Amino acid sequence: MRLRAREMGIKIGVMEPGRYNAITDVRGVAVGHSTIIEGEGPLVVGKGPIRAGVTAILPRQADIYEEKVRAAVYPYNAYGKAVGLLQVMHMGVIETPILLTDTLNTWRVADALIDYMYEVLGVEATSINPVVGETNGSYLNDSAGRHVGKKHVYEALDKAFSPSGTGPVEEGNVGGGTPMSGFEFKGGIGTSSRATPEFTVGVLVQVNFGRREDLRIDGVPVGKELADIKPRKVQESESIMIVVATDLALSSRQLWKVAKRAILGVARTGSYGGVHSGDFVIAFSTSERDVEPLLERGEKRRPSSGRRSLDEPYLNPVYRATVEATEEAIINALFKAETMTGRDYNTRIAIPLDRVSEIMSKYGRL
Amino acid sequence: MRLRAREMGIKIGVMEPGRYNAITDVRGVAVGHSTIIEGEGPLVVGKGPIRAGVTAILPRQADIYEEKVRAAVYPYNAYGKAVGLLQVMHMGVIETPILLTDTLNTWRVADALIDYMYEVLGVEATSINPVVGETNGSYLNDSAGRHVGKKHVYEALDKAFSPSGTGPVEEGNVGGGTPMSGFEFKGGIGTSSRATPEFTVGVLVQVNFGRREDLRIDGVPVGKELADIKPRKVQESESIMIVVATDLALSSRQLWKVAKRAILGVARTGSYGGVHSGDFVIAFSTSERDVEPLLERGEKRRPSSGRRSLDEPYLNPVYRATVEATEEAIINALFKAETMTGRDYNTRIAIPLDRVSEIMSKYGRL
Amino acid sequence: MRLRAREMGIKIGVMEPGRYNAITDVRGVAVGHSTIIEGEGPLVVGKGPIRAGVTAILPRQADIYEEKVRAAVYPYNAYGKAVGLLQVMHMGVIETPILLTDTLNTWRVADALIDYMYEVLGVEATSINPVVGETNGSYLNDSAGRHVGKKHVYEALDKAFSPSGTGPVEEGNVGGGTPMSGFEFKGGIGTSSRATPEFTVGVLVQVNFGRREDLRIDGVPVGKELADIKPRKVQESESIMIVVATDLALSSRQLWKVAKRAILGVARTGSYGGVHSGDFVIAFSTSERDVEPLLERGEKRRPSSGRRSLDEPYLNPVYRATVEATEEAIINALFKAETMTGRDYNTRIAIPLDRVSEIMSKYGRL
Amino acid sequence: MRLRAREMGIKIGVMEPGRYNAITDVRGVAVGHSTIIEGEGPLVVGKGPIRAGVTAILPRQADIYEEKVRAAVYPYNAYGKAVGLLQVMHMGVIETPILLTDTLNTWRVADALIDYMYEVLGVEATSINPVVGETNGSYLNDSAGRHVGKKHVYEALDKAFSPSGTGPVEEGNVGGGTPMSGFEFKGGIGTSSRATPEFTVGVLVQVNFGRREDLRIDGVPVGKELADIKPRKVQESESIMIVVATDLALSSRQLWKVAKRAILGVARTGSYGGVHSGDFVIAFSTSERDVEPLLERGEKRRPSSGRRSLDEPYLNPVYRATVEATEEAIINALFKAETMTGRDYNTRIAIPLDRVSEIMSKYGRL
Repeated sequence: MRLRAREMGIKIGVMEPGRYNAITDVRGVAVGHSTIIEGEGPLVVGKGPIRAGVTAILPRQADIYEEKVRAAVYPYNAYGKAVGLLQVMHMGVIETPILLTDTLNTWRVADALIDYMYEVLGVEATSINPVVGETNGSYLNDSAGRHVGKKHVYEALDKAFSPSGTGPVEEGNVGGGTPMSGFEFKGGIGTSSRATPEFTVGVLVQVNFGRREDLRIDGVPVGKELADIKPRKVQESESIMIVVATDLALSSRQLWKVAKRAILGVARTGSYGGVHSGDFVIAFSTSERDVEPLLERGEKRRPSSGRRSLDEPYLNPVYRATVEATEEAIINALFKAETMTGRDYNTRIAIPLDRVSEIMSKYGRL
Repeated sequence: MRLRAREMGIKIGVMEPGRYNAITDVRGVAVGHSTIIEGEGPLVVGKGPIRAGVTAILPRQADIYEEKVRAAVYPYNAYGKAVGLLQVMHMGVIETPILLTDTLNTWRVADALIDYMYEVLGVEATSINPVVGETNGSYLNDSAGRHVGKKHVYEALDKAFSPSGTGPVEEGNVGGGTPMSGFEFKGGIGTSSRATPEFTVGVLVQVNFGRREDLRIDGVPVGKELADIKPRKVQESESIMIVVATDLALSSRQLWKVAKRAILGVARTGSYGGVHSGDFVIAFSTSERDVEPLLERGEKRRPSSGRRSLDEPYLNPVYRATVEATEEAIINALFKAETMTGRDYNTRIAIPLDRVSEIMSKYGRL
Repeated sequence: MRLRAREMGIKIGVMEPGRYNAITDVRGVAVGHSTIIEGEGPLVVGKGPIRAGVTAILPRQADIYEEKVRAAVYPYNAYGKAVGLLQVMHMGVIETPILLTDTLNTWRVADALIDYMYEVLGVEATSINPVVGETNGSYLNDSAGRHVGKKHVYEALDKAFSPSGTGPVEEGNVGGGTPMSGFEFKGGIGTSSRATPEFTVGVLVQVNFGRREDLRIDGVPVGKELADIKPRKVQESESIMIVVATDLALSSRQLWKVAKRAILGVARTGSYGGVHSGDFVIAFSTSERDVEPLLERGEKRRPSSGRRSLDEPYLNPVYRATVEATEEAIINALFKAETMTGRDYNTRIAIPLDRVSEIMSKYGRL
Repeated sequence: MRLRAREMGIKIGVMEPGRYNAITDVRGVAVGHSTIIEGEGPLVVGKGPIRAGVTAILPRQADIYEEKVRAAVYPYNAYGKAVGLLQVMHMGVIETPILLTDTLNTWRVADALIDYMYEVLGVEATSINPVVGETNGSYLNDSAGRHVGKKHVYEALDKAFSPSGTGPVEEGNVGGGTPMSGFEFKGGIGTSSRATPEFTVGVLVQVNFGRREDLRIDGVPVGKELADIKPRKVQESESIMIVVATDLALSSRQLWKVAKRAILGVARTGSYGGVHSGDFVIAFSTSERDVEPLLERGEKRRPSSGRRSLDEPYLNPVYRATVEATEEAIINALFKAETMTGRDYNTRIAIPLDRVSEIMSKYGRL
């Protein structure tokens, strides 16, 4: 049984996580995965082996088309195929669940999300903006076979809409993260959160980036220390999808600034932001809490004026929470992912947690 | 037989069009349409009536995945579902044909474009960035039925790759433009070009925007004069997709600036840029001609320095060409589109060209 | 006595202007000019002749540092030296008056604005973000002499803060517009507004762009008809500064979208958006009116939720008002500007209004 | 004598620095400082005490107005007053030296830079785009007194243009960095470089950001270990100006992507990107070397086609160099800065290097 970072005693930053240390600590947010692991051996495009899936994140377990949520997008390095982001950037709202998958499935997953909006949620509009993110799992998966279809999209969404959707979140080789790599170890889905009396920030990541030697955990050069473990093949794809949720009633401009902070968390794990990197941050607000309690003493605010957000020093702890939770979510993705062999017997081994533990001790952290 | 603007004696601007007055005047660019017109009567989602299609624009009749073309995107009002644009904005290149369709078909059309890249063009990558634009044809079409599939994508692309793909371009109720409206008349696909000895600019538009009373043709308030023709239903969607091609070897930054000019052409036809408007401009270069001949006398240029584009007064005629061709392409879309009745007997009438002729005369233009 | 467009019977668009047909129709907004016209004859840098000035626009006649106003910036073609805009784009607020001047005075004018914030308004902060825009008046002015100093900045601001600051606005050869050209005629400052029971939009422009032959007035090719009047020198600079004010409590994101519409108004007067064009739009809200009355029937809105701006069809009339007022403000700048001779006897003649009148009649508009 | 990071044995990253480990390792780049340290005791605005200055960075020791350099800007958190950046972002070139100073001097420093362009460099244009960055030194300096004038701008530029300008760069309490803070220690100017046979990247920073407890050096939580040293006052301003130079002939789009990487280096030192943070990265190319030698084997490139930059895997080492050099430049700024007492006896102590050394050892790094 692999442990999460915090279970191993590794505490990133200074703020405390919420109940599950997951994006679902933001009240109302729900997650569901559909995972496909089928076949082994040589790649036959269209047949397999399949190591793929889809992860659904619901801003709330309801039809958000009617009650859209405030949102923002920060494209750090936009070598990526994510759909729906330009409209979110423009309108400042998200109107569908967010799905994460393997690159070449992006469009059929988006199409299946439309099906779900119509068939399950009963939306009647002729203009719907599905949001789907991706990273490239082709090292282990028959990506060109595009095996993630309507069935899997429905499964992930149904799970997210089920009562368990708002509980703890599975990490590692699940959903969209199934075939992904991280620092040339096995990567995938990770999550973390930070909670204060005034607000909660939750982050979910799909990790598929990083060179072995660059990995840092809480600043410790773990990657360099693990250089003896040679990856069979260097990381080709260099991407991360990041979803940030908060219960604060932030404006889309404020969410955009929050989204930008997630990249600072990525940087701390050792990313150099590769050329072929599709790094997008999507941030949304569930609007459960007003920002009022965050305002610093003496801050000007005319009650009825709509002058909210004229100045924003109270956002600083929100930024900090975002950086910490992003960094920890990435580490969780690595820690929870298990060794996987995929197409053509390509293998990504799980990061050896006992070695990590030793290294952290050596560098004075455990 | 409906006429194009120029055939009626309406000359937009001062520059001359190319041979076909079409985007295909840019050497190498090719266009193909697939049009579906089936059924009539009440809307039954999934059955029809169908008024839809897809238009394919090839930067060149070859595998552009291997030889990508320089490109840029300008999102004027990004309430739209176009896919692939963020990567183009980031990388400055397009690596697939550009497809235009009805909103809700966007993702299955993108998925079929991936099929075509693999099956027909033989691309072997696991990262492909399809570019698909859309406007909302649901006033006439069973849009939620999403009837545009692989068959139609292949048909449009095959036509574009055929020898006739580089010839004159069909306009009006064809391809992606089939169900679209313009100024509450029938809209659709339009094209125009401007050619000089030094360069050619070609524009293709998918028109689906505008209120009747706002229509201007070469500055004449034609819409106001046609106010007696009441549309059955006011325009709900307010979008235009614009593709600009040039044979100049412009950088992606320069193409971005060219793309911005297309919106000036839109403005001249009477757009106020509606809230629910998905207005994107995609510009690309076929790199047939260097910018050298455009440089003004005395302009500094170190031959081997790569200092090209340090200053760019020579772009002014390119901007002018873009504005003129965009304006004329929009008018062509209206002029060539024929009256169409679609789902629920909804009807968009063609703009009456005889009346237009009279109005242009009344205002001293013909 | 030169007339404004509307006084000549030229009505741009369909909406009605406010009381003064000026940016000051937005309650609280105030304007003041300081104009320097000194010397004649050959240019002696540092001596003159001087044709320069500064125009001050106050979002309200108060210390807006303490009560900042929501704002946005749209840089259409950013070949310009305006200062303060990036912080406005980021924070979504303006905290000083807005000043407009001749290019090379930009920084000393900004520095003098800081003086005014300290000395007159009593601001005590060490971080102040002055907003100053510019266009290039060097065809008539000793621009390199940088003659606009603290005295003139104080004069313009004092006038704006005086009771008359909220009244009618002087146009043409005043303030920052003093030496500017428009369509190779004399240009300068222009203003216009649109008022409805629910909101007012006011626009002020500093016009310094356009080629003679491109000028359109309400769609009529006036420039082509005036081609017999040869300018002594073609327009070198190609810029316009646009300030849009509204009393609606819009978010900065919404103001950004409003700002984008101003460019549609510029397009209608005949701009091709020259390469050397510094075209910036600054939009701000005086927050006098909530958007509530604008909401369309049936629109979802949870009273206490902060979900405002989740959907925005009610912005359409605001967009229309912005386009119309921008177009009319530009024409007003041309109409009110008088012939001016400047350095080296360079002369820009005023557009001949009798000829304009004839042309408008010929084309069926008067 | 305080040491630089590398002199203390702290090696950031894996790449090697150039000769001086400074931005001047990029051939042609030159730096000059003018430093004002006058008076002590209580603040009297306009009198002092003065702790201020200006730093000049020349892309080359020549009139770059005539031979502009390719450039890009990345505004990470744009609560800042830097001037000239929007034009650089639009045109992709810089045409003046870059100056860094204390916030409220920004505009008079820009104005003095115009003087220098005319009087010393003999530029004759009436459109010049000065580039000046700033951070807020008001904790130690009489910032509102705005003491940096023409004299200091000339001194900094003259030094930069002198033969020593291209040599080693002074760090710490010099030039624009004179009054700045870093992690609530003394901050200021820092620099570092990375050199390979194919290219050099140099970075210069003006450090004025960070909370004590967040400081990380090469991943070690130095700030937490130094928590016993209480700052007299917490950091109010949260900004960093970063200038990145390279001798590679990159396009402005590529330079923009390089600029984005600098923020990853900032993140590694412990920044959470404060709300009141003016974090701008300016990157430029001296175009001494073509990118040809960087191209990976097998990469497609048509010699005469201008198709350069269609794909860019070769940029990865440039990104890495930028991250490493930025991180090290920040540490150098802290290490070289000496304790300073300023206005009102406010004091920023220098980070105690002996303690740093102990901490680095404790955590297994020295």
